[in-house]
Amino acid sequence: MRKDKISNAVIRRIPRYYRHVDDLYYNGVVRISSSSLGRIMGLTASQIRQDLSCFGEFGQQGYGYNVEKLRSEIAEVLGMNKQYKIIIIGAGNLGRALIQNFYFAKSGFILDAAFDVASDVINTEINGVHVHHIDALEDYVVECKPDVAVLTVPRSVAQKTAERLVGLGVRGLWNFTNIELNIRDANVKIEDVHFADSLLTLSYMIANRDTP
Amino acid sequence: MRKDKISNAVIRRIPRYYRHVDDLYYNGVVRISSSSLGRIMGLTASQIRQDLSCFGEFGQQGYGYNVEKLRSEIAEVLGMNKQYKIIIIGAGNLGRALIQNFYFAKSGFILDAAFDVASDVINTEINGVHVHHIDALEDYVVECKPDVAVLTVPRSVAQKTAERLVGLGVRGLWNFTNIELNIRDANVKIEDVHFADSLLTLSYMIANRDTP
Repeated sequence: MRKDKISNAVIRRIPRYYRHVDDLYYNGVVRISSSSLGRIMGLTASQIRQDLSCFGEFGQQGYGYNVEKLRSEIAEVLGMNKQYKIIIIGAGNLGRALIQNFYFAKSGFILDAAFDVASDVINTEINGVHVHHIDALEDYVVECKPDVAVLTVPRSVAQKTAERLVGLGVRGLWNFTNIELNIRDANVKIEDVHFADSLLTLSYMIANRDTP
Repeated sequence: MRKDKISNAVIRRIPRYYRHVDDLYYNGVVRISSSSLGRIMGLTASQIRQDLSCFGEFGQQGYGYNVEKLRSEIAEVLGMNKQYKIIIIGAGNLGRALIQNFYFAKSGFILDAAFDVASDVINTEINGVHVHHIDALEDYVVECKPDVAVLTVPRSVAQKTAERLVGLGVRGLWNFTNIELNIRDANVKIEDVHFADSLLTLSYMIANRDTP
């Protein structure tokens, strides 16, 4: 039984829960108490219990959490079993880095195409993923109905590429362009990866390291 | 006058404040009320006032915030005026993408060297940044004292590369390796970029889009 309204902060923590519980699972841990999980994650036991209770009754008093069950329930909450189809728009350095090094399948996504405009990459394969000309996008989307597009295009074409994808019915955008996309459709979900926010957080930590 | 203890959640929001206030500044906005800033950022006016009050007395009742002043004060809080030196370890696709497309200077960082082991990139320049052999790391760090290293190496060498850097006195790591680094030195600050957390958040938003 899920609560109707889950706060954004909790939602942001779920992937972290998955990551840690997944590690435990692969390390052969069968069950774990909320206090042990809290120690690993730097959260209090009561925070853990409160967060996880948003998604259902996972734990059992005096026993803790069954790691395998917790892992599969969090995966379900995250939609990892939906087999969402994902495509990459922009096979430059960043797009290529994602295709070669990021395990889409481990997050439950099926990556099966990339698109670009540069003639030297079109019709090549990167890590088994075919790179199509961007002009083939319309036909591809109509036929394959990808759920999510990764935007690794230059920022100058980010907004218009996003609109083109949304116009074709793509309803999830993973945005690496550093542009705040302006899409007024509540059904389109956008997740921005802001490298600068991350680096500035590190800058803050360093700058304030030696102050008491 | 800063508060002694600023929560992690607030710290995470400061770069976002900077980003939005920087946009306002470049769009010629001179002053802004907490409620207008809140609307832009999806926060309440009182949340804005509370967050910013952690770092000093920026606003003025009935006037709002002077955008230029707020921008420079947030930049100072973030350490953006410290001119931290940063190096990149690993000039593969991801390292290269950062060198070519990420504006380190806009975050206050000076990028002046990259390191790799692949003979085809060593002694080349990428966007004006020289790529050294990793064997030159020791001499370089002793001489140039970089504050931060970007880790874009394969995950198999992530931990040992981190230890090598920390041993040389580098006290900030921007970690793209998807490995949780095990560094037991409170003076070393680590910021992880977890692509999977971001994609799984998007997955959650899509999976839970149509539920009431």
